Parts: sequence; C-alpha cells; structure tokens
Amino acid sequence: MKTRVDCFSCFMTQALRAGKMAGAPESARVKIMKETAALITRHSMDTPPPFLGGAVQEIVKKHSHNPDPYIKEKKKYNLVALKLYPGVKKEVLRAKDRLLAAIKVAITGNVIDFGSEWKFDIHREIKNAFSHKPAVFDYKQFKSALKTAKNILYLADNAGETVFDRVLIETIRELYQVEVVYAVKQKPILNDTLLADAVYAGLHKCSKIISSGSSLPGTPPGAGTKEFLLKYNSADIIISKGMGNFELLDEERKPIFFMLKAKCPVVADELGTPLGSMVLKIGKSGK
Amino acid sequence: MKTRVDCFSCFMTQALRAGKMAGAPESARVKIMKETAALITRHSMDTPPPFLGGAVQEIVKKHSHNPDPYIKEKKKYNLVALKLYPGVKKEVLRAKDRLLAAIKVAITGNVIDFGSEWKFDIHREIKNAFSHKPAVFDYKQFKSALKTAKNILYLADNAGETVFDRVLIETIRELYQVEVVYAVKQKPILNDTLLADAVYAGLHKCSKIISSGSSLPGTPPGAGTKEFLLKYNSADIIISKGMGNFELLDEERKPIFFMLKAKCPVVADELGTPLGSMVLKIGKSGK
Repeated sequence: MKTRVDCFSCFMTQALRAGKMAGAPESARVKIMKETAALITRHSMDTPPPFLGGAVQEIVKKHSHNPDPYIKEKKKYNLVALKLYPGVKKEVLRAKDRLLAAIKVAITGNVIDFGSEWKFDIHREIKNAFSHKPAVFDYKQFKSALKTAKNILYLADNAGETVFDRVLIETIRELYQVEVVYAVKQKPILNDTLLADAVYAGLHKCSKIISSGSSLPGTPPGAGTKEFLLKYNSADIIISKGMGNFELLDEERKPIFFMLKAKCPVVADELGTPLGSMVLKIGKSGK
Repeated sequence: MKTRVDCFSCFMTQALRAGKMAGAPESARVKIMKETAALITRHSMDTPPPFLGGAVQEIVKKHSHNPDPYIKEKKKYNLVALKLYPGVKKEVLRAKDRLLAAIKVAITGNVIDFGSEWKFDIHREIKNAFSHKPAVFDYKQFKSALKTAKNILYLADNAGETVFDRVLIETIRELYQVEVVYAVKQKPILNDTLLADAVYAGLHKCSKIISSGSSLPGTPPGAGTKEFLLKYNSADIIISKGMGNFELLDEERKPIFFMLKAKCPVVADELGTPLGSMVLKIGKSGK
C-alpha cells in the first residue's frame, strides 16, 4: 500500500506519543520530532507507511536511549489477555461455528495497538467480538483453503493479541489437524510481539515460533531470515495479522488472508470499510 | 510564548486540515505536508508558535492556489453569530452585572477557531456562557482599569467571534463612555477577522476599525502599521483576543488583558488551566 498524505501528520503524532512513552526529556523529544519531520520531507509516497513508521521508532529509541519504549504496555496486555483467555476459550468451544468464533476473537485482539490512534478497551471489545458484523469477510474462501492446507504461516502483530491468536491456532489445529508456524518480530518495534511475549502467551504449545527477521511494524515482502522466507514461500495459507502487514503485503500474489481491525482512516478507506471494522480479506492471488 | 514539542504534530495536522479545506488535490497536499515538515526541521523553539502557524498557512495558499482557504467558514460564522446577536444582547442587558456577562460572551465567541483542534458547537457554548466558571479571571483589575481608561485597543481574533466582541465593546461604551479601536488582520490567515468581516458584523457602529498590519494568526510585538503601533503604544487598555495573540504578546509589558478560551493543551498548560477554560488574564505590566 502506498503512503497517503494523511499518514504524515499521523506519524508526527506517533513520534510525539512514542517519545513520551519512552520517557524522553523535552529536549530529546524536540530532536525526535525534527528528525521525524526530516524523514517526511524525503519519504516517497510509493513506499508503504510501515517503512516510515519503523524509521520513526528507531529515532525514538536513539534519542530516548530506550531500546524498548513499549515494554510496559506489552507486559500489561500479555497479562490482561491471558486473564481473558479461559473465558474466551469457553465461548469459542460452545459456539455453533467454532472457527468463525475463533477468527472473530483473533481479529478483535488486533485492537491492542499502540501504533494507530485508535482508543481501545480490550474487555469491551472482546465482550462484543462475537456479535460484531464484519465489513469484509472472506470466510468461505478461508474455510475452503483450510480443507487442503498442510502448513500455515501466521504473521503475528501485537503483544497480548498473541493470546487471541492462540485461540484461533488451537481451533484450526483441532478442526483441521494442520501445523502452524507463528512468526514474530526480530527486535522491539512498537508493541509488536517478540519471541518472549509469544512464549509467555503459550504459543509454543500450539505452534512453532520463529522470527520473521523484521524489525518494522509489519513484514516486508522478500525480506527476512532464511527460515522465514522458506516458510513464507511454501505456506499453503499465510494468515497476516494487523494493518502493518496488510500495508506491506497487499500487493503480494500469495495465499494470504489478512485479518485486522481497520483502526486508521487510510487503511479503512483502502479496504472500503468503515473505521473500526473487522476484516478477513483474501489476498490478490485468491481473487 | 515559546514553541513546545507538542506544537509540531499539531501544525502537521493543521496543514493537513487546511489543505483539504483549501480544496487542494492530493499531489498539492503532499507538497504542503512536506514543506511544513521542512519548516519544522528549521524552527527554533524560542520562536512563538504563531510564526510557524502563519508560515504553514502561506504554504497552503501557495500550493492550493487558494488565497483564502477559510472564506466559507468565515462567512458561515459571521451569519451564525449575527443570528445569535439579538438573543445574546438581551441576556446581557438584563444581567445583574452587564460587564461580566458581556466579557463571558466575548470570550465564548473565541471558540470559533479553525486553527486549533478544538471541536465546537457555538449554539451550545453561547447557551452555557453565562453559567461557565472561568479558570483565570482578573475581572477586578479589568474593571478598575476601565474606570480611568480613555482609549482602548481591541485586538480581534476570528470571524464570527467579532459579533460577540461587538457585544462587549457596546457594553463598555455604554458603561464607561470610552472609545475603542478594533484591530483586524491585514490579509487572510485561517478564519481570522478581516475588515469586511468586522464591518459585516457591525463593528464600525461601535468602534474605529483599523488593520493591525499582521497576516499571522496573532499580532507580533513591535510590528504592524504606523497607525496600529501608535494605538498599541498609547492605549490605556489593550484587550487581546485569542490564543495566537496570547502566544505572541504574553511577555509584553503593556496594559494588556488577554481574553480567550484555552483550546489547546499547550496554552492551557502555560496558563495553568484545564483545557477549554475561559480566561481573562492581566498582562505582565499589571502584576
């Protein structure tokens, strides 16, 4: 996805918020804002937004001397989500359509996002998850793909959300006996899941956790560790969580299913959905 | 007032909003955002925010080929305010303390502002104006200054707000028989009042309207037309409306009374008031 003019002010706001979150003093935050502004002057609109977003977060880390500004939020939401897990699991197990229920849980988990300006209350969102009417929902195609899939690559997004991914992965394994590889970020970027968060959330019990090699807020096409690229190129299904992955992979001709909450006006507009919509969208190869 | 780190993302949002308001196509809006970003990289924190704000609006005008992007909003609120005038006037005339009521009206009119991110409903605000408890209110000092004042300079802010300024000026003239000079902006800047707006609002019936010479969203100290500077330096009272004038004149040692709604977190913090507060504050010479 290309960068849109609206992204620039959003990234400035993100830089401001991240500088505060990182505990940087005012003088360091001035440097953060000025360097972000300088990046914007040089940014090509053809480059997807997560490249700019990743660079902004590196500026924040450098000037705040804080290598992981969102660590508190990650820990907090790992814990919050784990507390919600038993109840959510019970709801999914007694649902008429367990796969459908688990997908809604996993997509709803995508609200735990400190990159976008979306305000969220995870308890309320999870409570309303099952009754939510998605805007784009290629469920039939996803279900059909699952029937023949032998290996699934799951691109993780945020810490805490990981717990809700676990619910979906467990459901898929129970219903389709298929192996899932769960790819997390290589280094801290926003509140994205790292290996430790995924293990804390129990993902190792239902999937093989690998690093994607990415330190951007998303997984750029054609880049990553050897192991990741092997999985990426051979997967029967790629489940791509979150806006960052959609922004980077929307042009890919792969068996991708994007699952996300459309939390920013630009992505919502790109998808043709109202802001806040639940989205399960098949990638370009599936059209 | 110095520029604070929070101002930068706010100016980017303002540039985005103004570009849309001016009807600029996406390609022109990209130029607007990138030039605004470039300005930010060069901006000294010691320079008050309205200098940056003014420069941003010049960029918007240049790339949108629209010399007056807020003209529709100005016309709209001139009309809306004029419709409210008779009712407001009646309320002031039957108030126990007419001066106090008129000041509250004039300050409330300051919500009609397309520079800040403040969302307003002028009908609701005017309805609640008389019961509003101001956060900073140097009323005693203002009243005392009025008793001996022979000439008052009134620095206008926004179109539409002008109508509510008229209510205050008429009240002051009735109660204190003092002459008032009403200074408006020289050229279009945001939705600030120009000569035509002031005349449309009937200000010529109760004051002498002059141009301040400024095309910034505020009146910079030591600058302006000869006529304006003469008035500025000899006035017994300067009534300074709005945040932009406060940001530019807060260090001045003049008989200034700032009247404004604190619509942005930075100004509210500078004044030590909650966001949205009504403020009547005496300038430094009065302390």
